[in-house]
Amino acid sequence: MPDRFPAPPSDKTLLEAGGTLTPRFDANGLVTAVVTDAGDGTVLMVAHMNAEALALTLKTGIAHFWSRSRASLWKKGETSGNVQQVVEMRADCDQDAIWLSVKVAGDGATCHTGRRSCFYRIVEITDGEAGLRDDGSAVLTNASAPHAHG
Amino acid sequence: MPDRFPAPPSDKTLLEAGGTLTPRFDANGLVTAVVTDAGDGTVLMVAHMNAEALALTLKTGIAHFWSRSRASLWKKGETSGNVQQVVEMRADCDQDAIWLSVKVAGDGATCHTGRRSCFYRIVEITDGEAGLRDDGSAVLTNASAPHAHG
Repeated sequence: MPDRFPAPPSDKTLLEAGGTLTPRFDANGLVTAVVTDAGDGTVLMVAHMNAEALALTLKTGIAHFWSRSRASLWKKGETSGNVQQVVEMRADCDQDAIWLSVKVAGDGATCHTGRRSCFYRIVEITDGEAGLRDDGSAVLTNASAPHAHG
Repeated sequence: MPDRFPAPPSDKTLLEAGGTLTPRFDANGLVTAVVTDAGDGTVLMVAHMNAEALALTLKTGIAHFWSRSRASLWKKGETSGNVQQVVEMRADCDQDAIWLSVKVAGDGATCHTGRRSCFYRIVEITDGEAGLRDDGSAVLTNASAPHAHG
């Protein structure tokens, strides 16, 4: 398994229809990663991957990311035990985003707040203002882990 | 409906548990937006929103983004007719990502290649190399629209 990936082709057709993973890392060396639950499709989190995180994810089958706030490689769930086993990985058309469909180990919490998903608040318009309403999802673990993907 | 949003609070508890939408736009003024199909949860695309796109989405109920490649506001589906009607919008814990659950109008294609989802290729390991396998999803429209979200 490569630690590096081939450079994206300048040919758009190759990029979008080719059979080679050539991630288009941004100026910071990152692609966006969306993580959903393989069981019901719930969006669990959005994070980022550098080449090393992507390579480790492919090599191990366990999701790794790059923590922008900590500026370090981040094996999701390493502390909590709630690691993410990758069931399927997909790349988008222009290869600057990755979709991971995962099975979460441990108590199933993905969010550092202890909830299953980071998306526990619904945006609602009230009196012309955009508010957030907690969806009431359970806190599965103590919110003790540092926030890594900010 | 505001065209601007309140600045994110320095208090992490307010940011993560509060009832106010205070998006944490990045250095380029963008948040990440994940779009899923309200019917079956398929991830359709990943794009970005600036404050104007987010405000317009809230105001109209139709998804708007910021096209980084075109450097312009982007009403998704304006040309093709495949606009995205927002069924639910959520913000993540630290408010730098938005999840839109949508119903796609027209022929249902979201990807500029004419496919329903931009994530039409599965990452697979063959002989130690990371390849992409097309999932065979149908091309619903001619791939004529310019690619806007690169």
